[in-house]
Amino acid sequence: MCELLGMSANVPTDICFSFTGFLHRGGGTGPHRDGWGIAFYEAGGYRDFRDPHPSVRSPIARLICDYPIKSHIALSHIRQANVGEVRLANTHPFTREMWGRTWCYAHNGQLEGWQALPLSYYRSVGDTDSEHAFCWLLGELRSRFPAAPSQEEEQREGFWRLLHLLCEQLRGMGVFNLLLADGEYLYTYCSTKLAHITRRAPFGKAELSDAELTVNFAEHTTPDDIVSVVATEPLTSNEDWVRMVPGELLVWQHGKIQARFLDEA
Amino acid sequence: MCELLGMSANVPTDICFSFTGFLHRGGGTGPHRDGWGIAFYEAGGYRDFRDPHPSVRSPIARLICDYPIKSHIALSHIRQANVGEVRLANTHPFTREMWGRTWCYAHNGQLEGWQALPLSYYRSVGDTDSEHAFCWLLGELRSRFPAAPSQEEEQREGFWRLLHLLCEQLRGMGVFNLLLADGEYLYTYCSTKLAHITRRAPFGKAELSDAELTVNFAEHTTPDDIVSVVATEPLTSNEDWVRMVPGELLVWQHGKIQARFLDEA
Repeated sequence: MCELLGMSANVPTDICFSFTGFLHRGGGTGPHRDGWGIAFYEAGGYRDFRDPHPSVRSPIARLICDYPIKSHIALSHIRQANVGEVRLANTHPFTREMWGRTWCYAHNGQLEGWQALPLSYYRSVGDTDSEHAFCWLLGELRSRFPAAPSQEEEQREGFWRLLHLLCEQLRGMGVFNLLLADGEYLYTYCSTKLAHITRRAPFGKAELSDAELTVNFAEHTTPDDIVSVVATEPLTSNEDWVRMVPGELLVWQHGKIQARFLDEA
Repeated sequence: MCELLGMSANVPTDICFSFTGFLHRGGGTGPHRDGWGIAFYEAGGYRDFRDPHPSVRSPIARLICDYPIKSHIALSHIRQANVGEVRLANTHPFTREMWGRTWCYAHNGQLEGWQALPLSYYRSVGDTDSEHAFCWLLGELRSRFPAAPSQEEEQREGFWRLLHLLCEQLRGMGVFNLLLADGEYLYTYCSTKLAHITRRAPFGKAELSDAELTVNFAEHTTPDDIVSVVATEPLTSNEDWVRMVPGELLVWQHGKIQARFLDEA
């Protein structure tokens, strides 16, 4: 299984603390030696760093820990390859442009029969089930929403419902835990395993589970900050993480849950 | 004016030497303080590093110099903003997926009336003339070639001729020096300023123009290596660079020129 890490915040926030714990799972405390990647949305722009080597020894990963990039949305993935060999083209996150926005995607799990999902606007560069599912997902969204939905409640809801439906369809094909973002929203969908925590004033201390590191968020925040972190497994040992339920889609914006969709079966 | 740097090689080659000289132009010997980026094609995969800060002081740029990433094709850009503010979304290179390949693009120059170029498949994320022209260019190519041209001489030539025609059209709108790549080929198009050099056995020494650094390529190469470098201005002081002529498109593969198209006016 791969590992996922996502962040949504109402102020530009660095992810160094969480990432430090997270990257130890890439060949340190975890078996995920087959590459890693991290993506940041900063002031309307997007960039990612990807490396097909174990994160725990990667000089690029060290840079990310030492050079605090502040963003509203970040997402990261550590890979344990199952479908597709270990190479850069198969390293998450994957990105495509839709409606003039950079969409970024990372997947944990494995799908069966994914080759049959029909592609339209977007094609895979690598050969993983994950990227194929992303191309299908985005193509389906685009064919139903050729332009971005307006900010009207009804339009926006309709788009999110469609996304939830497509995720449910993918869950029917195997395991599909998802992080997806477009710079405005972070979407997290749980098939088997995802947990989240929201930190806000009064801020306290947090201790990493995977590395010997404690941070006192009170020293790094202002009283209005709201920062949420989503991960495959809780990253800290002294906080109460909320586990998502299978079939649940959460829509995050500015560190808060804006909408929630559940398995209706 | 921005600065461009490209490389095509027949073996995975690092671009550290050229990039070291090049990045001094980003706020060191040059006035290009408005961000920089570099892209690598490695074993069928793609990644880029972009930073909206001056390259000469960028920790990410330092990493690129110290951590030799070996690739067949690399391209880099240092920005001096004219259209569009200094921010990540306006930082070259730009990328889009077409036919399951990652296309990467960097532009030097300025266009007039670019807003009128009609967009189809691809939309701008930022607000530069450069990215708009890229989205238009790729959209035109895709509408005429919905699938990749076959490797047949005629098909391939037809695609390259179309690319040349579109570049000529953009040159008619201002200054359009271009680096474009798809992982297989590197395309370089000259509107006003681009120069290139091909290094092969017997390899000699090269001295950077912008920094005090000499490299003896004979120590880092095998007799079969062919490495070509393209840049806005020659990067070394003791080698003979070939200047491209306005309206010239070169198609590079494995370090060699595969095709050449000239202004027919």
